[in-house]
This record gives sequence, structure tokens and C-alpha cells, in this order.
Amino acid sequence: MEFDLTLDDLAAYRYDEPEPADFDEFWRRTLDEAGRIPVAAEFVAHDALLRTVETHDVTFAGYGGDPIKGWLILPAHRSGPLPAIVEYIGYGGGRGEPIEWLAYASAGYAHFVMDTRGQGSTWRTGDTADPGASGPAVPGYVTRGILDPHDYYYRRLYVDAYRAVEAAAAHPDVDATRIAVTGRSQGGALSVAVAGLRADIAAAIPHVPFLSAFKQATRITDANPYAEIVRWCATHRTKAAQAFATLAYFDGTSFARRATCRGSFSVALMDPICPPSTVYAAHNVWSGPHDITVWPYNDHDGGGVEDELRTIRVLRELFD
Amino acid sequence: MEFDLTLDDLAAYRYDEPEPADFDEFWRRTLDEAGRIPVAAEFVAHDALLRTVETHDVTFAGYGGDPIKGWLILPAHRSGPLPAIVEYIGYGGGRGEPIEWLAYASAGYAHFVMDTRGQGSTWRTGDTADPGASGPAVPGYVTRGILDPHDYYYRRLYVDAYRAVEAAAAHPDVDATRIAVTGRSQGGALSVAVAGLRADIAAAIPHVPFLSAFKQATRITDANPYAEIVRWCATHRTKAAQAFATLAYFDGTSFARRATCRGSFSVALMDPICPPSTVYAAHNVWSGPHDITVWPYNDHDGGGVEDELRTIRVLRELFD
Amino acid sequence: MEFDLTLDDLAAYRYDEPEPADFDEFWRRTLDEAGRIPVAAEFVAHDALLRTVETHDVTFAGYGGDPIKGWLILPAHRSGPLPAIVEYIGYGGGRGEPIEWLAYASAGYAHFVMDTRGQGSTWRTGDTADPGASGPAVPGYVTRGILDPHDYYYRRLYVDAYRAVEAAAAHPDVDATRIAVTGRSQGGALSVAVAGLRADIAAAIPHVPFLSAFKQATRITDANPYAEIVRWCATHRTKAAQAFATLAYFDGTSFARRATCRGSFSVALMDPICPPSTVYAAHNVWSGPHDITVWPYNDHDGGGVEDELRTIRVLRELFD
Amino acid sequence: MEFDLTLDDLAAYRYDEPEPADFDEFWRRTLDEAGRIPVAAEFVAHDALLRTVETHDVTFAGYGGDPIKGWLILPAHRSGPLPAIVEYIGYGGGRGEPIEWLAYASAGYAHFVMDTRGQGSTWRTGDTADPGASGPAVPGYVTRGILDPHDYYYRRLYVDAYRAVEAAAAHPDVDATRIAVTGRSQGGALSVAVAGLRADIAAAIPHVPFLSAFKQATRITDANPYAEIVRWCATHRTKAAQAFATLAYFDGTSFARRATCRGSFSVALMDPICPPSTVYAAHNVWSGPHDITVWPYNDHDGGGVEDELRTIRVLRELFD
Amino acid sequence: MEFDLTLDDLAAYRYDEPEPADFDEFWRRTLDEAGRIPVAAEFVAHDALLRTVETHDVTFAGYGGDPIKGWLILPAHRSGPLPAIVEYIGYGGGRGEPIEWLAYASAGYAHFVMDTRGQGSTWRTGDTADPGASGPAVPGYVTRGILDPHDYYYRRLYVDAYRAVEAAAAHPDVDATRIAVTGRSQGGALSVAVAGLRADIAAAIPHVPFLSAFKQATRITDANPYAEIVRWCATHRTKAAQAFATLAYFDGTSFARRATCRGSFSVALMDPICPPSTVYAAHNVWSGPHDITVWPYNDHDGGGVEDELRTIRVLRELFD
Amino acid sequence: MEFDLTLDDLAAYRYDEPEPADFDEFWRRTLDEAGRIPVAAEFVAHDALLRTVETHDVTFAGYGGDPIKGWLILPAHRSGPLPAIVEYIGYGGGRGEPIEWLAYASAGYAHFVMDTRGQGSTWRTGDTADPGASGPAVPGYVTRGILDPHDYYYRRLYVDAYRAVEAAAAHPDVDATRIAVTGRSQGGALSVAVAGLRADIAAAIPHVPFLSAFKQATRITDANPYAEIVRWCATHRTKAAQAFATLAYFDGTSFARRATCRGSFSVALMDPICPPSTVYAAHNVWSGPHDITVWPYNDHDGGGVEDELRTIRVLRELFD
Repeated sequence: MEFDLTLDDLAAYRYDEPEPADFDEFWRRTLDEAGRIPVAAEFVAHDALLRTVETHDVTFAGYGGDPIKGWLILPAHRSGPLPAIVEYIGYGGGRGEPIEWLAYASAGYAHFVMDTRGQGSTWRTGDTADPGASGPAVPGYVTRGILDPHDYYYRRLYVDAYRAVEAAAAHPDVDATRIAVTGRSQGGALSVAVAGLRADIAAAIPHVPFLSAFKQATRITDANPYAEIVRWCATHRTKAAQAFATLAYFDGTSFARRATCRGSFSVALMDPICPPSTVYAAHNVWSGPHDITVWPYNDHDGGGVEDELRTIRVLRELFD
Repeated sequence: MEFDLTLDDLAAYRYDEPEPADFDEFWRRTLDEAGRIPVAAEFVAHDALLRTVETHDVTFAGYGGDPIKGWLILPAHRSGPLPAIVEYIGYGGGRGEPIEWLAYASAGYAHFVMDTRGQGSTWRTGDTADPGASGPAVPGYVTRGILDPHDYYYRRLYVDAYRAVEAAAAHPDVDATRIAVTGRSQGGALSVAVAGLRADIAAAIPHVPFLSAFKQATRITDANPYAEIVRWCATHRTKAAQAFATLAYFDGTSFARRATCRGSFSVALMDPICPPSTVYAAHNVWSGPHDITVWPYNDHDGGGVEDELRTIRVLRELFD
Repeated sequence: MEFDLTLDDLAAYRYDEPEPADFDEFWRRTLDEAGRIPVAAEFVAHDALLRTVETHDVTFAGYGGDPIKGWLILPAHRSGPLPAIVEYIGYGGGRGEPIEWLAYASAGYAHFVMDTRGQGSTWRTGDTADPGASGPAVPGYVTRGILDPHDYYYRRLYVDAYRAVEAAAAHPDVDATRIAVTGRSQGGALSVAVAGLRADIAAAIPHVPFLSAFKQATRITDANPYAEIVRWCATHRTKAAQAFATLAYFDGTSFARRATCRGSFSVALMDPICPPSTVYAAHNVWSGPHDITVWPYNDHDGGGVEDELRTIRVLRELFD
Repeated sequence: MEFDLTLDDLAAYRYDEPEPADFDEFWRRTLDEAGRIPVAAEFVAHDALLRTVETHDVTFAGYGGDPIKGWLILPAHRSGPLPAIVEYIGYGGGRGEPIEWLAYASAGYAHFVMDTRGQGSTWRTGDTADPGASGPAVPGYVTRGILDPHDYYYRRLYVDAYRAVEAAAAHPDVDATRIAVTGRSQGGALSVAVAGLRADIAAAIPHVPFLSAFKQATRITDANPYAEIVRWCATHRTKAAQAFATLAYFDGTSFARRATCRGSFSVALMDPICPPSTVYAAHNVWSGPHDITVWPYNDHDGGGVEDELRTIRVLRELFD
Repeated sequence: MEFDLTLDDLAAYRYDEPEPADFDEFWRRTLDEAGRIPVAAEFVAHDALLRTVETHDVTFAGYGGDPIKGWLILPAHRSGPLPAIVEYIGYGGGRGEPIEWLAYASAGYAHFVMDTRGQGSTWRTGDTADPGASGPAVPGYVTRGILDPHDYYYRRLYVDAYRAVEAAAAHPDVDATRIAVTGRSQGGALSVAVAGLRADIAAAIPHVPFLSAFKQATRITDANPYAEIVRWCATHRTKAAQAFATLAYFDGTSFARRATCRGSFSVALMDPICPPSTVYAAHNVWSGPHDITVWPYNDHDGGGVEDELRTIRVLRELFD
Repeated sequence: MEFDLTLDDLAAYRYDEPEPADFDEFWRRTLDEAGRIPVAAEFVAHDALLRTVETHDVTFAGYGGDPIKGWLILPAHRSGPLPAIVEYIGYGGGRGEPIEWLAYASAGYAHFVMDTRGQGSTWRTGDTADPGASGPAVPGYVTRGILDPHDYYYRRLYVDAYRAVEAAAAHPDVDATRIAVTGRSQGGALSVAVAGLRADIAAAIPHVPFLSAFKQATRITDANPYAEIVRWCATHRTKAAQAFATLAYFDGTSFARRATCRGSFSVALMDPICPPSTVYAAHNVWSGPHDITVWPYNDHDGGGVEDELRTIRVLRELFD
């Protein structure tokens, strides 16, 4: 069932929380500091038992130089550098096996899948550690280091995502001028963040993105992972304001405002995990050209396979 | 958690319910009757937005001549007829979109996916109707027509599955002498049934198969779909024996006893939907060479992607 | 708890979705076509272990001539033809045993209970098959054949219900000029449909009726059976509009608009299965005299036994 | 699913807990004390909107002289005193309306329904207060006064049930020499208790009876109401032994041992509320002739309407 | 998540149900009648295995002279009479052990804990019986005697709470001029009631109080214990108005209107058990000075330990 | 309900998994390495709003020198060094506020409460970070670093717990020769580990301890936190053996075998979180004098307040 605003109100929705005054400064410093360590992507051929595509096991230096894993999957028969799509992964998942990532390479693109630090255990395997500091946290990742934006888990992960584009571009068969980013849920949120931080990507194609309009989200849903924030605040009763001050540096609405590439969203009207108003909150302020595909009867599965087909259609428009 | 027999007891488990005296006769007549209508597979090229593989939209005549849909997916670059794998689908799902079936074609095989009549609505789309008669039934498919083996839903579906092998073999790029069948859950059950009914397939590779050892299953689990049978018997209190008399014509253990090709199973020790003893019940009486991969900490997800990789490894052993 | 409109807003609620242009034409043709086969009700004396009432096992020709079962229960001591009440059954149930239907005959009326095709397995036994075609469907009955109004399950069932009145009237001890229809939930919906399709009944007495204001229902509840429609649309993401186009031919609000007999409803303000606004949507447009009894603290149990007593009181007013 | 002993082990099951040494003395004194107050049943004609049966609103003096309500329902057309069935009600329910109790009068018997003190609010209305003392108790009735057998709720209720037989017998149209008792769940338990305490009844027909083999029950189920005892003991950690000492005076197994009339039980093998071993524990020690009908696929619904039909068949055997 | 009014609307919320015309008369008579029996508090030294505090096992005469238990806990090192805090307990709990009540005595106050009649079994032990009459009731305490305000359970409990203040004041080491009352949930409701009935207390410090704005509560939550009232009305469908007429004599909003001492509340915005609008309903009409601490991310745990610290800070302000 | 072995079988239960050959070596090296950094406990006076006790905010160097927080609570009136109890905290909790820890100081002991690194957010606040490395992990703490015993979260936490005894002993008002350790669940597990690693403590008093007999636990329960291990293995299907190899260095049964001080356990027979056989597995091999208190009707709440009273009684025996 629906539980959020009506479709008309969603189209007009604005999330009015003020941004931190030093939002841009915070991210400039963060990226500068990270930039001192080269991305240094390594590509090692990997036998994934597949014949129509070719797989590379990737390692690159993410936040703090931590080794971040990924897959680069290419059509086995190709000629010249290919347009690429960089994909980020939903909450709790990891890069898994190449056989789980066949869609976009089978459609003819270079497909770079970034593993998620410290996750990759709840529903798909990952191979990347999160060696960062973490204060008291609710089980999960969304409250790790929540008392200080410098310690917050997503500072490390957003930097990884930012640098994944450079890692993908480093492969000789990738055309660095034609790269889009995508992902579902947390992966969609990372797409939005990267689009707000980089000027050199062609598009972000987020599906039912997470990490947006935190105060709205925590008011209207009791589903995880937003509910992990509520749980944290329910325990640390006197520190809720401090936690939300941290989250404000990571809110998708702020990144969307700064994104100038194309933004092609999907949203599901019965999604309790990434409620529609929080998705529209980011979509409605996107600075570049933007569109949103609405799935009226879906919950967090969103458009499912239709979201994948939609992504390919956007790539066709962009790169063919 | 585990809830069934220990691993040692599973290895020795026998399901002792007697078979119907006319089991073979019933199936001989059923297949003969069905055989009077030609399979008449049609293959129509389908644009699935993919480049490394080639997709055909298939229609063939199943039970009663009903039109059954499917996909045939082939590597785009190929030379000569390919070994093929015919795949059946789990309960409630349908053939969906070709982009959901990339693993085996990407691994170099012809991949034939059979749609499931009347299902394809709960978690993946299907396009095939079930025009068969149906008496009073619990929501779901497993009690449709349960009062008479001739009316029972799975009589129609087992015949579809039997004929899908012929449909696949009818394509010129498929090597009819090198066909294996596979599937997960209900799809695994169909693989077992086909292996018991046909002598011309190379192997069945069922993952966590359903539809086996019905009396054991309904005693030890309260998970659907087996629980739909319990629900039916709980309502039709005086007709339970009649229902189980019907089910006995469809029990995977009877098909396994008759299967002479290789049987390569997987089972999950914490699976409440297809409890391990019901899977071992079929595996332990398989007449051909057989093996079983045990996933000790999984529930009905079984080996997940590892089951797919395992399938490819078995195909490599059989066909390379 | 309440989750729908306030009582004041319910009283004023209008469901604004447009009707299909050919709604009347569709039903005229459907009934004409059905009418070519005689109802041919048969009444066979049945020993139900009862002494104050007399039971007949009924079979009549419903949609497509399919044999539909029912019970006719009459007071054992009677003189002359009796006013009758035709009752339809809630979702998943069947006619069960005569001992389950003693209220209205004990109150002095002829009581005709119509079995529901294909149901009668979840909570009370039924004996009637649904031999109709069915495309891919979510477990349950409400999405069977949903892609085309001609194939839709409720086309067959509405016709059965329409003809049940004629079947009841065919018994010599029934006074065909004094027949009312009733039922709870799905049974209430059938009462509403019959009242919209027939001019010769004295009243419809629907309790917490189902199958009304489909778009409103699917937006505001996540309870089955309306949620089966949501599930179907969530899977068949690109066919939702087509499904709702079919449902529009079966919406209780359209039948209510055409009903000229008395309509005596009940509604429960905490009912998530048949939400109050969907019940009021039908009640508020009823063309004949109408009233509604509100149960403010009940969920889908509605008035329970009070609904039965209420029914008898309405029958007393109508027929005494 | 099944969770208790196998059918073979159930047939042989013995519940070995010792009885209180003064069990018979306790009940002799209790009944003697109660017997000093006359039952004084009053029968007031009641308009239940029914015509085939006749209804009397009954009040009689139960434990402590408290006024206990009931219904007496008689076939409207009758000649001479009728055999009677006294029925007790399941946990939480009350006597409701006469229209809810039509089966046995419609079958030709006098039907006496005893209301349950203090209950009658969860699922069917009651009209009888429980003015007895009650110590700290878990919500529900089964731990009221559990620290002392004299204060225990069921001491009062068992006495009411014992005296209901005398109240029924007091009506001139009841044949006091032909009375059976019945009930479902708690009502079944009261039937068993009355059969153990009175020599003048023809039979007890308990369906899935409650209140038997308390230690076994609390070990093997976590369903209410047995779980209320577990909850009480979990809170009053140091008083569990005292609680079970009280319960031993009310255990159905002890009453069954003393019952010399016919005992005709039903049991459901998937019943978590009154687990099968606790039902067999009473059945297996019944001193009179006894039989048990097994519902293998049912939970606490037991035989449902089949239990009612079974009851009528037993009455036919006893009284026709 | 939030489910009630916004914070702004809560601050302005008024619960508009009219009070019974004889509200004050009802309570004056009740207290007068009760006052005829002396409180007669007894204090018996109790070895609670503690050394920094001293414990007394208290018994006093509550409603009807029933013996009510409690603890009086005092700092072991003290000089002169101490200010005291009387604490009432949440639904289902009892006085437990002294070691569970160390906060306020450790903070330097006399702490009087009143046991709750008939409860003390679900989550903390109690030792006090409820010998009052009780009609048919839903399991729990909130519908006991609900058909008549004179029989209603809370009439007895409110009188106990009223007299507990006198019992506390009776101890020589308690300064009767400096007494505050407090409690959580039901305990908070008792604080509010006592503040409305007595002029001699210094403050009420209710945390997330229960028993307020009954009609609003039963409309907006389906959580117990308010849901017990809904359940009662759902069963006793024709007596809901009578039940709410009783409840009106016990509504916290009416007591708050009469309270002239300080009222220091807490409320949790995600509390489904005592929804925020029902707490604000009482707070907003408090006649004395009042304040409310808001816990935006908590459910019925409210401020938890912060509520205890808050209580001590209020006591410091009042009594230091 | 019970779900594990019978009480007799529990008393005889042995968990037979072999220990790692280098178990003692692993821990000797771990503690030696840790020991190079001084514990350096600091005690800062803290105003906890309390008067009968005195509170110190403690910081000491735990594993890797990480700052670990704690509370030291002392009776305000004391003479000479006191015996002390060091308490560890259950899963997800932290040290909270001193007012939450009044029992043992009020009983006359020095009470040292150790905060838990990285936890303290789910149900009670903590103030200690876990700066250790962590590979992909299921939300929670029990799979952090599970692929290598050197990286495993509990290596860090066990070292913290080991050193907390030294931190407590460092305060001048603590008698270092009279120190016991205690805790509930995870806190109980830490007590067991410390008792196996240190020869200088007087007793361990674990209540329903966690982290014992891992293979047994993961087989028989699906409750968290053991289920987090199952989840991890279900995702990382090919690495389960490696994970259990790590866990073997942290199994309470191995520490219990090496413990020579008194071990006084509690266990709850209906505890799904720390199943009874896993508690007995540790208790039954304890080398020092040992006893176990059984709570037959409790789940993971165990003895609750009775466990606290029991702890004080053991301290009285040891130290008075």
C-alpha cells in the first residue's frame, strides 16, 4: 500500500533542511586528502567459467589508500575502447561472483562493479575490509562513526565510489569520456553522490536510491536501514542532533543539487525502505537534465529487471 | 537452524511410502496421449537489448497442445550445434526477460528456459496460461485438481517439461545428443521428473528440489508450498487420503528410482521449504550415477550462485 | 485502529474512476450468452443429521453451463412457499456442510447457499470446480485471467451468482417474488453485483463487501485479497493499466449505481481487508433505498453474529 | 507440521506426574461446600428471532452461589422430555447469542450452553462475572489464583460446570437420565472434569481438550493459554513449584482416570494449543469406554464442523 | 517512525470529549467511602541484601480495605525526615525486589513503591491481590468491570494510589510536606490521577503516561493495552458506548485539568502504546505549572534512564 | 517451550569439537603483546546525581592501547579497600549511566563496569570505539574479522576484559586480592574467558553466557547473535570452515576447561539465544568448583533480578 505523499505532492516535494555551511569545503578537503594517494588500479584476469565475456579482478586504492576490490567485465568480442558503466551495490551486499553481473557486458558495455567496504555478507559476498575507526554503532553500517562527519562510514565509502570512476577509466579498453554510474538503493545513493562530486561523468542512473532526506526518512519509515539511525538516536537520546549534523554532509539532496550530468531515477510508490518522498527530494533538485520512472505497485524491489532494461536504454541514448 | 535429520541419518534416509501399482502405466498413457500432438516448437528472434547473446522467443505445444512459452538463448558468436541446458523455474515464477537468464549462454551453452503454466506472477513474469480444469483449491498451484491424478496440475506441467526437451532439441543450433536439465526448487523437481521419464538426457542437475516424499514433507514443515497441501487437507478433512493417493503419482522419489542418467543434486540443511530429508529421499534412490552438494548453513536459497557455478562445472565435465 | 477516512468523510466519499464505456453492453452480452443454457436446478434430498430443517443438495448450470453446487435449507415444518435468502460466500470458502448454515432456515426462511467455483479449500469445503481458462496468476483467485475481462475469474462467478437466484426460485417451496441476496466480504460483493444486474430481487444485504473501488483499495491496504492485485502488478510491472481496465468491469461501485432494490450494508471502521472507504464508495451511490450499519471497533469480522441478526430483521421488514 | 510424538507413541503415552494425595478429598469438600447452595435454575423465554427452535435465557447458582448464565435451546416442535447435551465454551468466549448454537437443537436435542465466568470478551460475548478473589496474574484466566488450589480460577469454573448438568436437568423438557457433556478446548476440559466428578452422565465428548498434563504441555508448546503459565513462572521464578502443585488438582488426566461414562475424544496432530500428547494423556487413562478421532492435518481447529457431526452421531448412538 | 500529529499540532492538541456531569461527585463519594477505613500503613524491616539503603516491607489498606503491598526504601545514612517520592508501576508489573528500586534512595530520597493489585506477573513480580468483582473481560486489566464505573478495575487502583501517598507520609522518616509522585506508563497515569485528586503533593512527574484521551487512543493505535478496549468493544459490539461512558470517569485529561501542583511530563514521538497526542491531551490542560520533555526517536521506552535522571533533577529543584 | 536436551542429558552433555592445537600459544602471545602497553587506568570523579554511592569515570588502555571506558562505583560510606566485582555487558549494550549500576555498590562492593568497544548503541549507551580492522561482516559484531583469529573482534574484546581486572585493581579502594567477574550473556562469556586466562580472580559468575559451543549453537538456534554466524556462512558459502576455525579460539568451553577459580553459572531452559546445551557445555568442563542455577521457565532473561541476588550471595560467601 501507499504510505507517503500522493504522486502530485511528490512531484512538488522539497526537503527543506539547511545544508552545513562548509559542505563544499568538507568534500573538497576530503577529496584532496584522498587524492594524494594514487588510485593505482590493478586488473588481473579471472576465470569466471564464462566465454562470451572476459573478467578482470580489480583492486584499487580507495579512501585512505585502503584496497578496494571490484570486477571489470567486458564483452569477449570487442573492438576499440567501450563506453563503461560503474555500478555500486545495495546495503549489505558485495561484489559476489562475475556471473552475477552479466547484464551490462552482455549489452555491449564495459561494466565496473565496485565492492563495498565492510559489507558483502548479508546477501552477496564481498572481499573488501573497512579498516576505518568506528565508535559505538547499531549493527549495520549506517551509524558507524556517526558522531563526527570525518569518522562517518560513508565518508570512506563515498570516496571509494568517487575513485572507482578513475579506476574504471584506467583500463585501456574503457573509453574514459563515456562513463555513467548506476546502482540500486545504497548503490543509487553512491551514484548520486558521485554525480554531485565529479563533473566528468555522462549520467547517473540511480534506482530507488537510499541516503537522502534523512530527517524525512526517519520520520516516515520504520524499515531498516533508516531505522538503524532511529535506533541509534533512541539509545543515544541526548546525541540525536549531533548525529543528524553528521548525516547532513552525506545527504543525497545536497549532492543532487550539485549534479550537472543527466540524472535518470526510478522510484517505487510502496517502498518503505527508500520512501518515495526521499527519492523525489533528490530528483526534484537535480541540476542537470533529469527524469524519474515511477513504479506504482512496487516496494523496494522497484523496477527490478525493468530497471536494468531502462539502464541499457539510457546507455543506448547516451553512447550509441 | 537445523530441524531435520542429522547428516548421517540423511545419507541413509529411505522414504518408504509404496508407489501406486499403476505408476508406470499412468505415465505411459499420459505421455502417449500427449504425444499425439506434435511439439511444433517455433523460434522467433527477439530483441532483448543484448549483444553477446542471441535470443529466441519460443512457443511449443505442451500438455493438451496448450501453447507453452520459453526462451532460447545462444551465444552470439558460435560455431556448430551446441550442447544445451533446459531449465525449469521455481514456484510462482515465470520466464521473465532474457536478461535474467544470461549465465549459461555466457558460459557457452544453448539455454532453453521453459515458462510455467499459470504461474509467473508472484516474483517473475510469465506468459503461459493453464487452461486445465481445476477443482476447489487452496491459493497456489499445488492443490489444483488434487482429487484425481488425471486432473492434477502437475500432470500438465510434468508433460510440458518432458516436451520442452524435444522443443529445445528442435532448434538447428542445439545438439540433441547433449542435453541436460536443471532447475531450482520446483524447477529441480521438474528436472527429476524428466530424468525419470526420458532416457535421452545426459544429466539432471536439481538444486534443492521440491515435490518429493510428500508425507514426510507435510509432517515436518509448515512452510509453503508443502503447507498448501496441509491446508487443503485441514479443510477437506475427510479427503486427505484421496489427495495423497493423487500425489503419489507425482513424487520425485518414484522418478528418481527410474532415472538412469547422472543426477547431481544440491541440498541445504536449514531449508524449511524443501526439507533436506525430502531431497535425500530422491537422491538416495537415484539409479544413475549421483552426487549431492550440501550447503550446511543455507535455507531455501541453497547454494545460490554457487549452484549456478556448480551447474557449469557439471556441464563442462559432461560436454567439453 | 482506524486507518481510512473519518466517519464524516466516509459519508461523503465518492470514488471517481470512470466506468468502461461498454460496461452495460459487456454485461448484457455476458448474461445473454449465459442465458442460452438453462439453469436446470436439481434438488436432491440430503441427510444432514438434522431434524428441525430439511436439506437439499443443489446442482445448477452456472457460467458456461458448469455445474455449480449449493444447499437449499428449509424449515421442516412449513406451510406454503417461503420467502428466500440467497447467500454467497467469502473468499476461499465453500458451501461446507448444511449444519454450518442453520440461522436463516431456523428463522423461518428458505435459505439457498451457493458454492464458489474453485474456492472452498482455505477455510470451508467446497465442491465446485472452476474449469475456466486462467493466465498467469498470483496464488488466489482475484488475478485469474486479469488481462482480459472475458477471461477474468469474476466474470464466471458473477454469472453463477446471477443464476443462483433463478436456481433458488425454481424450487416449489420458494416464493420467487420474495427473494433477497446476502453475503459477507466476497459474498457481499456478489450480492451487490446481482442487485445491479437483476431487477427482480427484493433486497441486497451485503456485509463488509469486497470488490469495490479497486484503485482506492489497492492504494490504502496491504491486506489480501486486494494485495494479490498489488502483487500481480508489482510482478507484471508493465501491465498494471491493463489489469485495472479489466477490474473496472467488476467494480461494485458500478453495480451499486444500477441497483434499484433496497441495499442494506454493514461496514467496519477498522477493516483492513475491505477498507471502509471502498464499502462507502458502493453504498453512497446505491440507487435504491439504502442504509449502512457501522461497526466502529471491528475489523473484517464486521458485525459478526450481529450482521446475521440484522439480516433477519431486514427480512422481517421485507417479508413479514 | 507435527511437533509432538508420533502416532504410535501417542497411543502409548502416559503422563507420569503424581497426583496430590488429597485430590479426591479436595474435590469432595469443594462440591459439598458448593452443594449447600441450591442450583435454583431459572428459565426465561427469550426472543432470539428464531422459529424452528425455542430459546430460554438461563440463570443458575454456580460456585459460591454466583449467578451463572446460559442458554437452553429446544426444538420448537417436540413431544416429551428430550435427551440433552450440555456444552462448555473455549477459552475467552462466552455464550454469545442463541443463533450461534443451532446445531444440536436442530438435530433434535435439548442443548444447554453454559456461559464462562469472567470470559466472554475475546471472541464471543459472555454475560457472567467472576467475583472470585484473584492474586497477581498474567493477562488471561489460567493463572488467576494459581498460588492456592482453593483460590484458583478453575476451582470456581469446574464447580459451575458440575452444576450446569443439574441446571439442565431441572428443565421439565429435559430427560435427566440422558445427558451428555461436550465442548471444545477449554470446553472439552470442562467435559472431562465433569465426567470425572459425576456418575450420572451418559458420555463426555471432548474435542481437542485443554487443561491436561500441565508439565508436558508447558514443556512442548509456546502457544497460549499454556504459555500464560510459563509466563507466570518466568516472572515468579521462585514460585513455579507452588503453581504446579495447584495445577495438579485440576489436571484432566486425573479426572479421566475417574471417569466411568463413555469418553469420545478428538485430537489434532498439528495442534500447538492443546498438543496431542496432552490430549492422549487424558484419553489413554479414561476408565470408561473410550475412543479418539484423529485429525492429522489440523491444528487447534481440530475436526471443526466434523466434530459437531461426530457429536451428533455419538448422541444418536447413545439416545436413539 | 512517527504516526501521530506533528510536533506543532501536538502542542495545540485538545481532546474534546465531554466529561461526565458527575465526575467530581463520583470521585468525592468514592474517596469518602474509602476514607472510612484507615490507611494503617505497616512498615516491616526487610533484608534485601543491601547496605547503602534500608528497606521496609509495607502493607496498607487500599480500596475496600484490601491489603496493598509496597516498599519503602531509605538511604541508610540519613538525618531527619526526608522528602519522598511515591512511584507507581507500569502495566503488568509489580513491586518486584527492592534491588530493582535503587535510583531514588541512592539519590537521597525516601522512595515509596506501590504494588499494583492483581498485576505483577507479566514482567516483574507483585504480591497484591485484586479481590474486586469483575465482569467478562479481555485478558488484561483495562476492561475489568468496564460496564460500570463503580465496578471498574481502575476505580480500585486509583484509590490505592491516592492512599499510597498517605501511607508514605505515615513513616516517621518521611517529610509529609515534601512528597512527589511519579511513574511510567500506567504508573504515569496514576501520578496524573493522584495529582488531580490531592492538593497536598508537590509534583507529579509522569513518564509517557497511559489512560488518557481514550477515544483518541483507541482510534489511532492497535497496540495493547488500549487495544484491549478495542477488542472488548469488537466483541461486545452493542455495548461500546457504555464502556466509553465508564472510561470517561478515569480519563487522565480530566484529572490533569484539576491538577494544581507542578506537572513534569515526558513523551515519545514514536510511542504506539501511549501515543503522543494522548499524552499531550493531558499535559496541555494541566492547571498547575507544567513542562514536557520530548523524546523524538523513542517508542514506549520513552526517555528510559534519562527519565530517571530527569526525575531526580526535578526533585532537586523542588526539595533541595 | 523447551527445544534443547532434557535436563538429564544437559547435565551429561559434552561438546566434542577439538581445540586448535595452538590455542594456549595463541592467547599467550596475544596477552604478551597486549601487555607491553600499560593498563594506565584513570579514575575521574563523576557527578551522577547520587548520594549513597560515589562514581568514577574510568579510562584504561585495552587491546592495542585503545582507550576503554568504564565506571567504578563505590559505596559513599566505606572503610578500607573493598572486595570488587568486575562486570561485562551483554551484546549491543554499553556502560550507560551509573544510575543503571547500583545493585552491587549498594550491596557494599566496589563495582567496576567495563564498556564494550563498538557496541553500546542498541539498548544502552556506550562510549568506546572499536578502531580495529574489520573485513566484510554481517551487521552486528560477532562476524567482524571472522576470517582470521588475529583480526577477530572478540580477540580485542577478550583482551579488554582481561585487562579490566587490572584496571579495577589499580584503584586504591579496591582490594586486588578479592575480585570476582560477572556478566550476562556476552558479559557472561567474557567472565568465562577471563576466568580461563587469569589465575588471580576469586570467581566467575556468568549468567546465561554466550559464545560457547559454536557448532552446537548454530545448529540448534536461529536467534541472533548466533544466527549472525549462520547468516555469514550462508552468504560466504565456501568459507564456513575457515570461520569456524577462527571461532574455535574463542569458544567458552576451552576457557572453562582452563578455569580454576569458582564458576557459578545460571542457565534458562527455554533460552533460544544462549541455548542450554551451550551453557552446560562450558559448565560441565569447568576445572574449578562449579555450580549452576537452572531457570526452567525462562528464556534469555534467565534469572533476571534473581541472578543479581544470586551474585550478591556468592560474593557474601566469597568475601564476607
